[in-house]
Amino acid sequence: MATGKINVSVENIFPLIKKFLYSDHEIFLRELISNATDATLKLKHLTSIGEAKVEYGNPVIEIKVDKEGKKIHIIDQGLGMTADEVEKYINQVAFSGAEEFLDKYKDSAKDSGIIGHFGLGFYSAFMVAEKVEIITKSFKDEPAAHWTCDGSPNFTLEAADKTDRGTEIILHVAEDSTEFLEEGKISELLNKYNKFMPVPIKFGMRTETLPKPEDAKEEDPAPTQEVDNIINNPNPAWTKAPADLKEEDYKGFYRELYPMQFEEPLFNIHLNVDYPFNLTGILYFPKLTNDLNVQKDRIQLYQNQVFVTDNVEGIVPEFLTMLRGVIDSPDIPLNVSRSYLQADGAVKKISSYISKKVADKLASLYKNNREDFEAKWNDIKIVIEYGMLSDDKFFDKADKFALYPTVDGAFYTFEELQEKLKATQTDKDNKLVLLYASDKEAQHSYIEAAKAKGYEVLLLDSPIISHLMQKLETSKENISFARVDADHIDNLIKKDEEQISKLSEEEKEALKKELEETITNKSFTVQLEAMDSAASPFTITEPEFMRRMKEMQQTGGGGGMFGMGNMPEMYNLIVNTNHALVSEILNADAPETKQRLINQSLDLARLSKGLLKGEELTNFIKRSYEMVK
Amino acid sequence: MATGKINVSVENIFPLIKKFLYSDHEIFLRELISNATDATLKLKHLTSIGEAKVEYGNPVIEIKVDKEGKKIHIIDQGLGMTADEVEKYINQVAFSGAEEFLDKYKDSAKDSGIIGHFGLGFYSAFMVAEKVEIITKSFKDEPAAHWTCDGSPNFTLEAADKTDRGTEIILHVAEDSTEFLEEGKISELLNKYNKFMPVPIKFGMRTETLPKPEDAKEEDPAPTQEVDNIINNPNPAWTKAPADLKEEDYKGFYRELYPMQFEEPLFNIHLNVDYPFNLTGILYFPKLTNDLNVQKDRIQLYQNQVFVTDNVEGIVPEFLTMLRGVIDSPDIPLNVSRSYLQADGAVKKISSYISKKVADKLASLYKNNREDFEAKWNDIKIVIEYGMLSDDKFFDKADKFALYPTVDGAFYTFEELQEKLKATQTDKDNKLVLLYASDKEAQHSYIEAAKAKGYEVLLLDSPIISHLMQKLETSKENISFARVDADHIDNLIKKDEEQISKLSEEEKEALKKELEETITNKSFTVQLEAMDSAASPFTITEPEFMRRMKEMQQTGGGGGMFGMGNMPEMYNLIVNTNHALVSEILNADAPETKQRLINQSLDLARLSKGLLKGEELTNFIKRSYEMVK
Repeated sequence: MATGKINVSVENIFPLIKKFLYSDHEIFLRELISNATDATLKLKHLTSIGEAKVEYGNPVIEIKVDKEGKKIHIIDQGLGMTADEVEKYINQVAFSGAEEFLDKYKDSAKDSGIIGHFGLGFYSAFMVAEKVEIITKSFKDEPAAHWTCDGSPNFTLEAADKTDRGTEIILHVAEDSTEFLEEGKISELLNKYNKFMPVPIKFGMRTETLPKPEDAKEEDPAPTQEVDNIINNPNPAWTKAPADLKEEDYKGFYRELYPMQFEEPLFNIHLNVDYPFNLTGILYFPKLTNDLNVQKDRIQLYQNQVFVTDNVEGIVPEFLTMLRGVIDSPDIPLNVSRSYLQADGAVKKISSYISKKVADKLASLYKNNREDFEAKWNDIKIVIEYGMLSDDKFFDKADKFALYPTVDGAFYTFEELQEKLKATQTDKDNKLVLLYASDKEAQHSYIEAAKAKGYEVLLLDSPIISHLMQKLETSKENISFARVDADHIDNLIKKDEEQISKLSEEEKEALKKELEETITNKSFTVQLEAMDSAASPFTITEPEFMRRMKEMQQTGGGGGMFGMGNMPEMYNLIVNTNHALVSEILNADAPETKQRLINQSLDLARLSKGLLKGEELTNFIKRSYEMVK
Repeated sequence: MATGKINVSVENIFPLIKKFLYSDHEIFLRELISNATDATLKLKHLTSIGEAKVEYGNPVIEIKVDKEGKKIHIIDQGLGMTADEVEKYINQVAFSGAEEFLDKYKDSAKDSGIIGHFGLGFYSAFMVAEKVEIITKSFKDEPAAHWTCDGSPNFTLEAADKTDRGTEIILHVAEDSTEFLEEGKISELLNKYNKFMPVPIKFGMRTETLPKPEDAKEEDPAPTQEVDNIINNPNPAWTKAPADLKEEDYKGFYRELYPMQFEEPLFNIHLNVDYPFNLTGILYFPKLTNDLNVQKDRIQLYQNQVFVTDNVEGIVPEFLTMLRGVIDSPDIPLNVSRSYLQADGAVKKISSYISKKVADKLASLYKNNREDFEAKWNDIKIVIEYGMLSDDKFFDKADKFALYPTVDGAFYTFEELQEKLKATQTDKDNKLVLLYASDKEAQHSYIEAAKAKGYEVLLLDSPIISHLMQKLETSKENISFARVDADHIDNLIKKDEEQISKLSEEEKEALKKELEETITNKSFTVQLEAMDSAASPFTITEPEFMRRMKEMQQTGGGGGMFGMGNMPEMYNLIVNTNHALVSEILNADAPETKQRLINQSLDLARLSKGLLKGEELTNFIKRSYEMVK
């Protein structure tokens, strides 16, 4: 038996790193600035513990683009490297410098925010450069070094005359990557990836207007000066303690994140946890519409202030991806797929922490200022309802603050609803019936009929509300939801009292026959009911169960029965046998009068339910103009 | 000056390969089966050119899961490896075996479909296994070899007693990957990645019912037998020549691709190109609805019959991502990001080839069977209209076959429309006005008014149609679109003739004043018009420009003006001064009669435009019930 060691051939692995390590070439700039930041923060740490006897000062990282020379320079004032360190950290690919550093200074370095990908990230430079130079001078009293490599595994290393501390990386940009020589492109990348990195980053100069000197004349132009153009905010709000931030700071940070967004956020949630994982961030609730699809993917994910992605699927519970803001965690694995993220235990914990934190914040908003919470409800309900549907723990918490608005603008929690309505809306089988409308305008006459009975009508108009009702009906006892147009109001909440019909059984039979002969549309099932004589003579209703199943199928998810979307619409035509007009129909002598009365009444009932359209509506209107005269 | 060679340390690179090479751990099975397929096809090639003096036979690749032993076996009957070859191809990471093979047999191997990732893909095994064994016997007359490695860079290599040709890979599945020991999981992966790979893949057995022997009694059960369960179709439709496929084959393949899809595709496009890139595939047009968002990402991307992804963004033009089917190309770079794909020249060529091919197919469908094309138009128009908007080359082609349906079910091309309508619908400024409706039902009375004038009304109801109209108006000369309810019909297509008003100027002034006093709703601007006395007395219109800008803003993209979505709705109330009812209003004595006539007429006009809702509609209906009696 032979044993041996697997040999990784450099010639073969090198192009692989270039090609596969990062799927996105533009990442090179983020990686090199991360290294520069790393080197700067390491120096800061060493000076703070007395290990480095130099002045830390106010270091910046400078990016320069030399379009003519086809070069990009990344220059830092960090700890620099000696020739030996270049040999160790650069020539040995994948030797993680940050790891070794953290090992050595474990406790003291814990809070210094060291980024930690040193070594490997550097090679991303070869994704865009045909040749890379490093000119570096260590903070230690050793000569500067100059390393050059053309992307093959061969390098040269020689002494350099750099005297100021730090590292300069020079990228000789390859022919296929000249887009990165455009200032606009570099600006775009800096703005995308480095906007909140912890060391100031300088890219060019900008002109600043100074105050006029006191003795200046009116017509003198204000003096100006050229200053460094710092592209980042090294201390973004989420890195600060909540106690140090005012409402205005949170709003200001929102504008920093979304400069094109004019609407202010409704409120924010500051996330801050260090056990069992590290996570900071600020989530904002924007005003949300009922469209579930368009408003996702606005949350930005950072790792130690370096932008990673704006796809937080898997990390943030799905129902919260409609929020905005930032999340920063060194514990989220990068470069891994969604399906992996979803299975990862640490990520699951992060996700459930965020869910819990959001629920707690909502609970406290509800408790501390209910009026304000009610005012915001319609802008945030879609998130809460979606959360209640998809996350049982969230449901348990949200059940105490989720609100059910009425058509008249009152807001109740579920418990309050039960308390308030049990006396009036409990039916003869001891079931509490919660009446609702989905559209105040379209269902107006039905809402009025319910209100005339002294009932409260909720206004539930989210696209996913039928799923939530289904869940509430199964998780609560003895309650059910019914839309106001699902049946005649006396049938929706059945009481023991019986209405007396003005018509005899024979008359009813005759009436039903006549109605069925005249109304040839098969969508309508005629149903005679003895109702209040003031109630509408004809009313069209649509049974709750079928309608809700169809709606659930349209919005996806479980519940809707297969193929239900294709079922034809079926309606009941409720005829009020106690209404004077109905007696008139029954007693009309001329068949044409009878027919005219039935058809006109049916048209009006259809109009009320929104079913009179097209040619039928046009004809109805023509007839009505005649009647106006 | 020192020179040297960058050293890739195996200890460091090895975990890196495991972690970063593939973002998705499940990929290991695809990679190992690719290698097995590769080894089998190589043998086929060598036997076919007489290089290997063995029987090729009917090799299968077998996958076995040993849940108790925590092992997965991948067994092929391909060319196998000698101990020397294991040393060369396995121990030297990233030594691409397939590349060397292709180099050697360049011309003869060209069409043999060799996959070509040998070597590197093998190491993906360590993403899920803590130990990997290879037992392999070459087709050459040499002893079998047994290689073992525990994921460290150390391996052992010894002789084995395997006598049948081929390679068996044994994965000792790691603790964190036991999900891959579930048969269901492996089935799922095979179905996802290997469904169309070119060598039969066996996974377990299945029971097959045999015909009953002739002398069997009625009550005897049919005999059964256990047969190999082959999970793939090694010769999927797209690998065949279009001439060898019937309509039924294409439909059958659609069902293979989308077993849960019950609706048949409308038609298909067989892609087949080998210069300047290789691409085969079949695209299907399914029935499409007007919802742009939900129907994307159903096209599957393959590389030599190995599934890669169902996200073809960048490769397929965006407007075609609503189609379904497969694309297979060895020339599409994998593992790269979308932004990279979008910039890649080869990918751009593929994308524009697909676009051109789809345009050509549509053109030929239109030409060869216009009736059928018309019948399918409403199910495919969204793709074509979207393409015309986003791709100028596609626009030029599609302009010749894009159809404009009328409300009466006729279909015209743009050229036909111009020809047919120029005589009747050219206005006094020599502009051809194309009238359209977006909803036959809701705009019925307006459509009727236009038809009464002898005009043709188009039915244009796509969500993006306002953008397309805008584009047509700027790219064609002297045409404009106007929705039928944008103005009174005589104003939409202005002719030279003047209608004579029954009312004098003084009467008109008095009428206007009275109307404006009674109609307090500020959304309506009163406009008196001398129209046909049979035309509606009151009509509400909504100016084209504002409405269209708002719609364009809602559906995104350029064109809509910023902030327009928040503009209030503004309408014109057109009052027909020649209608008898209007004279009656003017001449009514009692102010309450005048008001009643105006309000009832306004309500009817609002009803016709769909603006009478909620309480106002309920009150209107109540009043109307009174009038019925």
